[in-house]
Amino acid sequence: MKTDIQIAQEAEMLHIKEVAASIGIEEDDLEFYGKYKAKLSEELWDKIKDKEDGKLVLVTAINPTPAGEGKTTTTVGLGQAMAKLDKKALIALREPSLGPCFGIKGGAAGGGYAQVVPMEDLNLHFTGDFHAITSANNLLAAMLDNHIQQGNALRIDPRQVVWKRCLDMNDRVLRNIVVGLGNKMDGMVREDHFVITVASEIMAILCLADDLADLKRRLGRIIVAYNFDGDPVTAEDLQATGAMTALLKDAIKPNIIQTLEHTPALVHGGPFANIAHGCNSVRATKMALKISDITITEAGFGADLGAEKFLDIKCRKAGLKPDAVVLVATVRALKYNGGVAKSDLGEENLEALAKGIVNLEKHIENIQKYDVPVIVTLNSFVTDTDAENEYIRRFCEERGCEFALSEVWEKGGEGGIELAKKVLDTLENKESHFHPLYEDELTLKEKIEKISKEIYGARGVVYEPAAEKQLAKIEAMGFGSFPVCMAKNQYSLSDDAKKLGRPEDFDIHIREVYVSAGAGFVVALTGAVMTMPGLPKAPAANNIDVAEDGKIIGLF
Amino acid sequence: MKTDIQIAQEAEMLHIKEVAASIGIEEDDLEFYGKYKAKLSEELWDKIKDKEDGKLVLVTAINPTPAGEGKTTTTVGLGQAMAKLDKKALIALREPSLGPCFGIKGGAAGGGYAQVVPMEDLNLHFTGDFHAITSANNLLAAMLDNHIQQGNALRIDPRQVVWKRCLDMNDRVLRNIVVGLGNKMDGMVREDHFVITVASEIMAILCLADDLADLKRRLGRIIVAYNFDGDPVTAEDLQATGAMTALLKDAIKPNIIQTLEHTPALVHGGPFANIAHGCNSVRATKMALKISDITITEAGFGADLGAEKFLDIKCRKAGLKPDAVVLVATVRALKYNGGVAKSDLGEENLEALAKGIVNLEKHIENIQKYDVPVIVTLNSFVTDTDAENEYIRRFCEERGCEFALSEVWEKGGEGGIELAKKVLDTLENKESHFHPLYEDELTLKEKIEKISKEIYGARGVVYEPAAEKQLAKIEAMGFGSFPVCMAKNQYSLSDDAKKLGRPEDFDIHIREVYVSAGAGFVVALTGAVMTMPGLPKAPAANNIDVAEDGKIIGLF
Repeated sequence: MKTDIQIAQEAEMLHIKEVAASIGIEEDDLEFYGKYKAKLSEELWDKIKDKEDGKLVLVTAINPTPAGEGKTTTTVGLGQAMAKLDKKALIALREPSLGPCFGIKGGAAGGGYAQVVPMEDLNLHFTGDFHAITSANNLLAAMLDNHIQQGNALRIDPRQVVWKRCLDMNDRVLRNIVVGLGNKMDGMVREDHFVITVASEIMAILCLADDLADLKRRLGRIIVAYNFDGDPVTAEDLQATGAMTALLKDAIKPNIIQTLEHTPALVHGGPFANIAHGCNSVRATKMALKISDITITEAGFGADLGAEKFLDIKCRKAGLKPDAVVLVATVRALKYNGGVAKSDLGEENLEALAKGIVNLEKHIENIQKYDVPVIVTLNSFVTDTDAENEYIRRFCEERGCEFALSEVWEKGGEGGIELAKKVLDTLENKESHFHPLYEDELTLKEKIEKISKEIYGARGVVYEPAAEKQLAKIEAMGFGSFPVCMAKNQYSLSDDAKKLGRPEDFDIHIREVYVSAGAGFVVALTGAVMTMPGLPKAPAANNIDVAEDGKIIGLF
Repeated sequence: MKTDIQIAQEAEMLHIKEVAASIGIEEDDLEFYGKYKAKLSEELWDKIKDKEDGKLVLVTAINPTPAGEGKTTTTVGLGQAMAKLDKKALIALREPSLGPCFGIKGGAAGGGYAQVVPMEDLNLHFTGDFHAITSANNLLAAMLDNHIQQGNALRIDPRQVVWKRCLDMNDRVLRNIVVGLGNKMDGMVREDHFVITVASEIMAILCLADDLADLKRRLGRIIVAYNFDGDPVTAEDLQATGAMTALLKDAIKPNIIQTLEHTPALVHGGPFANIAHGCNSVRATKMALKISDITITEAGFGADLGAEKFLDIKCRKAGLKPDAVVLVATVRALKYNGGVAKSDLGEENLEALAKGIVNLEKHIENIQKYDVPVIVTLNSFVTDTDAENEYIRRFCEERGCEFALSEVWEKGGEGGIELAKKVLDTLENKESHFHPLYEDELTLKEKIEKISKEIYGARGVVYEPAAEKQLAKIEAMGFGSFPVCMAKNQYSLSDDAKKLGRPEDFDIHIREVYVSAGAGFVVALTGAVMTMPGLPKAPAANNIDVAEDGKIIGLF
């Protein structure tokens, strides 16, 4: 069987100008990065901004398992299938992060015959967006420490610096460091931390900003530290806003590439789905809605994190109205949720399926709370049996969901026709009455409790004393109307990664709360979140190489 | 008077494909980065590699002073002037570093009407080459610390790690840090250091590599640490070579942009001129020699560092043969060398000129030691007087040098016609008998002494005990045949920055020696070299901004 990178490298790509032309984008509105990547120009936005929006479809999934669900694969395959049905559709994905490519796993470009290409470029530097974010993040950090060094007029408390440096690299030794050692000219000594670039607030800001002016406003609001009185110090106070904006002036422009079937894909931005909202950029989604009749986008992790944040943060902030949600599951993942070991997932097991399907059930119920129609799709695997598929189909139909099998991994767009037809049918016949889960006016605690109880199914919420204090301070600072971005493990609906299926009788524990004032949300952490991954014992980097013909090998 | 960025932003650029076409490069051989930047494809090299080389002209300068010399301005202006004379010329420059843009000064794209554009892009992310180097550098660092964390099979001595992390940012607090704090999973604690990206050995390697295969070989040879027996541990030992090469596969391709007069310029690579060799990439220079009849390139700092390394390292390693050297001076800088304060440089002062011109004299003599014809050019300034210009002209002619005034800052290519004619005349009528200053076979000490005495004019060389030990070890390791890369302050011919003019009766003090095994040279440090700059009290970043029309302001 061919690997994803083999399939991707064998693809005959079209010049990106031809792909863009297929949905009416002219060459003059593209900024090329080689032959197969381009950015959409600011001028294009000016031309299309008054057009009517197309339909918006979110692809999300059950809680992730080691079995794999194939959310991106489904998103790409659905886009390919729409083209086969002569629909003007555009997919809008997140950009993958460079660092993790060298760790355990490679790309996030879909899989099999439902991928976006050029896969190697996408997974390496792509169009440099993440590098620009790294630069802007670290310029702000350097200006902060330089301010302290040069007299500290703002009276920044070195113990209360909250801005961290970043790198797009899995580098565990940078999690906790001491900076400023040496002599007087080498800075003030303090404890510091690096996060991976996707965890930078600037990533979240870039993805939520409407345009360059909004980006600039948001950058200025970033809280970098507190002074000795406990008052916030912002990027604007450090006079860093303009220079950071200059570094991001191209990064805010959406990127266009193609699927293996030459249909267009916007791939732009990629914030964490725990401490941030986990969606591609508002800018890309809005452009896609103007350019195409159907925009198909995805959100990070499972629906409890990804879809909730897409709906309660991204849609709320950007004024987007989703028309349908596709919920991806696999027979294998549902059996895993039902207690089957990873090695036994190849065998038919209706009992385990019945036990594990409650995870899917909860996600269906959750999306229905937003009054958006749901289509469940099974990303097929060769070991799935007809009996298992039928069981799930009936289960979904009893809950008022459309259902479709998807074979896009194996067959590309052709394998997504059934799903595409169900989606089209839903868009035509079922109306979305989307509303967020909660109103801005609720207190932060009320918001946290609403998400915990209604989405996660928790009994209640328990706050650590530190979190109580932080919540009070954040509301006193005037950020009480922000939505809450929950940082929770992605594997369980609860905050205990081991509780699979549909856990009950559990509390959500809020350990820490902070405000991302530039992004415009309050982050509530339910446990330790890894914001700087490490490399494994045998990193994937050991096997990545460039062959003599210039082809990259070992990315997967 | 207009600022450089105003002039640059007012320029009507041509699409880069038109600029490239003007010297016979077809659109299919370009990889575009927007409309005004492109990379030259690997396929282009295959097409042209058997062509005969054109002529090679190096632009260098006297020791830099606060008065400014205008080496890049002269290089760009000379290229523009050649086009006015209908010559097929191509300039080959270094890429500027991002970090310093936010510190004291902005761009390194020439000045006035002799600039390369787009100036903002060039000074910000350009085509991402430096970001790729940063990534490759930090991947190697992460793999090294991960190796220690995961059992340390290579027995790396954490006290003898010589590989440093890097960022393209002026960030003084990262000069000396402690990494690996926290818990067991957060790595081993050790002292570490960040350098600015241009100081990474990978930058020097990228600039000396012949092709991707040579790049890979060189990356593998990088010494990252020594083990507990004192033996070197390389990037290849860490199995990092392939992944680093993958990260650099596009960065090795030369970039093409344009001058204000739409003539082409290759801008590629930018290593430090103290701990590295300070020249643009071999790859770009070799391509320029195939594409054009005359390649005009420059080297960092004054001729004692830049030209010496260009001739003894770059030309030696790459088999290049320079045909002429242009030596840039200004009346102001020569008077400064003669003891005039910066504020008084506007007044005619023939006495100070006569006193300071010995700096120029020494550089003329030095270049003549390589048996390459020299043309001296004065980059004119409005306060220069005819008497001063005439004095310098006579001085040069008496020493067998051609001389030309240059007014390219004010007049662009038109202002460089006199210089261009002298260069053409030299190329036609004076033969270059280039040879390096020393042979590979000399010992490292003999090489250091030869450079110190013959180029700097030193009486002798004094070695610190540590340096003696390091030299012995490096020769024992088998690197004795490498050329020596001297790390010396750029302001004086001596190792004391305050000794201007043509110092005499001084010794060169070698404090530390190490090998850059991938780059292929031995670095000899004459004092502390700043490899991670800091930001000043009022950083330039405070004034950089993006205007409402999307234009960047405050870069200069």
